[in-house]
Amino acid sequence: MHRYFIFLSYKGTHYCGWQRQPKDVTVQQILEAALAKLMNAEISITGAGRTDAGVHARMMTAHFDLLSPLLEPTNTVAKLNSILPKDIAISAIKPVVENSHARFSALSRTYIYTVSDVKDPFEYENYCFMSIRNIDFDRMNEAAKILLEYNDFTSFSKLHTDVKTNNCRISEAYWQQVGDRQLFTITADRFLRNMVRAIVGTLFAVGRGKMSVDDFRAVIEAKNRSYAGTSARPEGLALVNIEYPSNIFI
Amino acid sequence: MHRYFIFLSYKGTHYCGWQRQPKDVTVQQILEAALAKLMNAEISITGAGRTDAGVHARMMTAHFDLLSPLLEPTNTVAKLNSILPKDIAISAIKPVVENSHARFSALSRTYIYTVSDVKDPFEYENYCFMSIRNIDFDRMNEAAKILLEYNDFTSFSKLHTDVKTNNCRISEAYWQQVGDRQLFTITADRFLRNMVRAIVGTLFAVGRGKMSVDDFRAVIEAKNRSYAGTSARPEGLALVNIEYPSNIFI
Repeated sequence: MHRYFIFLSYKGTHYCGWQRQPKDVTVQQILEAALAKLMNAEISITGAGRTDAGVHARMMTAHFDLLSPLLEPTNTVAKLNSILPKDIAISAIKPVVENSHARFSALSRTYIYTVSDVKDPFEYENYCFMSIRNIDFDRMNEAAKILLEYNDFTSFSKLHTDVKTNNCRISEAYWQQVGDRQLFTITADRFLRNMVRAIVGTLFAVGRGKMSVDDFRAVIEAKNRSYAGTSARPEGLALVNIEYPSNIFI
Repeated sequence: MHRYFIFLSYKGTHYCGWQRQPKDVTVQQILEAALAKLMNAEISITGAGRTDAGVHARMMTAHFDLLSPLLEPTNTVAKLNSILPKDIAISAIKPVVENSHARFSALSRTYIYTVSDVKDPFEYENYCFMSIRNIDFDRMNEAAKILLEYNDFTSFSKLHTDVKTNNCRISEAYWQQVGDRQLFTITADRFLRNMVRAIVGTLFAVGRGKMSVDDFRAVIEAKNRSYAGTSARPEGLALVNIEYPSNIFI
């Protein structure tokens, strides 16, 4: 058996997220169909995680297995790109050691949430266009720092998911201005469902003065989703990086 | 009477071009409707030119007249942007001297045509994604230089248009590589309908070796549209600049 990692990016606007669904069109389904067409065999892929409907991926990984080794990975990338729709692009296919796993071998994931009050007609589906005049980003950064002190993020998790624990190690969480955009970068070993958008939405409540920095801490400590703010809109969110130990790549 | 120039950008993907049409949705129509809503009066705007269906504008200008002066142009810009759809953005509204005209006062227009064989899922509607492996850009640059020697571009004009002359003064026309994209920049005092896409399409024929550089010259000299190549796809094209004499702005 030969295991491969596939690296891709996609604009989430027209997809019901990554994960295969019985009815809705998802990125995993489209990618599996393209692989099946190219390889003339059913190939199931395992993603590094899942992104929600409308959420983008600047870099996403998945693994799949082949019985015989891929002779020309670069050629396969080009062929897949010509089969796939324009909003999904493969950047590389790399052989990995057999027991490596797109999801379980990942050391960390990084998401970026982007907002701006400047209209960009060419990028309007790629960030969250909203008024930010009354948002205090310094105050949101104060609150964001608190995230690094805790491990249990039940308050920012979708209810009734199948995970065993709501523990995550967040290693960075900060807002920064880049040009006319405000970017929130967050890195953790793992994320719960809906977690980043729930955090961003709650930070907005802090930035707008509807919640104090201490209130934000209380939300985390409550371990109860109903204490957190409304989830931020999906178009602002993008998965941007997934780290792996370098020794898994052959 | 108070005349204003409005500066805007738009993604052409979902519009049947700039110019108002009886049936189809155009940028001019959407902009006039937004102005009417904001000013509570019918306001007709005159564009600097027209872009074809699917063609973008990184910078477009138009003028309109008001009976009394606009008190807060910056505020009007913000309000218009909140009324307009996400793929049309106003950058400025500036008062101009009364006899200035968005179309006739313009000194030059610049278009850029962008192609790349690298898939960008976040920009796929903003450039022309195509194979460029067998295209010789040096050869296309040799041919492009010839454009500066001629004035009559009947060969690159749509048939049966209402213009009196097919004469244009092209001041620059060149391909350059920027990152993983190839950009064709062309500036002229005026452009005929469909002219840039017809030029780019014919240059592609040169770049692919289907036409020699001398053949390209013969196309121009023939003054006959049927000698030129197929028009290049609209999504690659964007109007990027329009120059005016600085003394028209108050």
